[in-house]
Amino acid sequence: MSTILRQHIEKIVPLTDEEFDRVMSHFKTRKLKKHQFLLQEGDTAHAHFDNFVVSGLLKVYHTSDDGHEHILQFAPEDWWVADYRANYFESSAVVNISCLENSELLTISYANREQLCKEFHKLEHFFRKKATGGFVSQQRRILSLLNNNAKERYEEFLSLYPGLSQRLSKTLIASYLGVSRETLSRLSD
Amino acid sequence: MSTILRQHIEKIVPLTDEEFDRVMSHFKTRKLKKHQFLLQEGDTAHAHFDNFVVSGLLKVYHTSDDGHEHILQFAPEDWWVADYRANYFESSAVVNISCLENSELLTISYANREQLCKEFHKLEHFFRKKATGGFVSQQRRILSLLNNNAKERYEEFLSLYPGLSQRLSKTLIASYLGVSRETLSRLSD
Repeated sequence: MSTILRQHIEKIVPLTDEEFDRVMSHFKTRKLKKHQFLLQEGDTAHAHFDNFVVSGLLKVYHTSDDGHEHILQFAPEDWWVADYRANYFESSAVVNISCLENSELLTISYANREQLCKEFHKLEHFFRKKATGGFVSQQRRILSLLNNNAKERYEEFLSLYPGLSQRLSKTLIASYLGVSRETLSRLSD
Repeated sequence: MSTILRQHIEKIVPLTDEEFDRVMSHFKTRKLKKHQFLLQEGDTAHAHFDNFVVSGLLKVYHTSDDGHEHILQFAPEDWWVADYRANYFESSAVVNISCLENSELLTISYANREQLCKEFHKLEHFFRKKATGGFVSQQRRILSLLNNNAKERYEEFLSLYPGLSQRLSKTLIASYLGVSRETLSRLSD
């Protein structure tokens, strides 16, 4: 499992064996089954962690008062997943994170991630690049929500995440795109 | 002008005079009048810069094929503004940035910003924190676009950016919130 994380980090910064051992010493393995929660809204105990997905698929979502699920992110293998708002403000969880498939994660506490960034300039660089990439992709999604109709959003999703759509139900994709299940069915048939 | 930038950076990391001089050596002053462009869609020459707003107010927006303006960000004093996607992918500009008020900026090239991050771990930390804060605030906005009705979006905007709404026309706020001008008028009267 650690090999996959090392390859992932080394796409941005090379690490010596000693450095990587030090990085790994902060991570713990977690295995979750389909439908299990990594985090639930309101939780404080598990809110301040970051998680690298070694295998599987998770969704980050918020449930509105009328019971609708709004999906902020899907997290397949080689992605990071966390409640970044809860980490940033050191607050309780504002989102739910659950598994759409059996998943294996490498988990690090927020405090230890900050410690690694402080200790290793390289890691600070790595996580800055990741945060910037995330910011850029969120901005594209905002623009898509403001600008694009259902058909354009769906086509953009398919082209950005080829391979992911086969692993997701139409209901999940519709919830991510902010369109109704019926609209998506018309588009994808 | 440099004092304001120093205070802004030192909210996150303290700098020695020498360090700050080195930081400042990469910045240039730019003054723009109301309605002037900092950047236009398709531009390559001016796309790879980051800008700290010393005074004034700018908007970052995209114009759709049917002529509608979709606002990604407002940037008042003490904010950073750039085409972060163009910077990240080293591509031509995908957004327009123009001044809603006369504005004074401190401008740094993307290459020099990266150089500062490489040279000073502190600066890498500063920009990681900024990127993470930006990511978190974009995620809140996505959730608001998926989950909230026009009234809730408007109230959230007023509470997040008190003071800014008086400097913006209803048309601009409507475009940022992704609601029609008529809907916003009904809500804000």
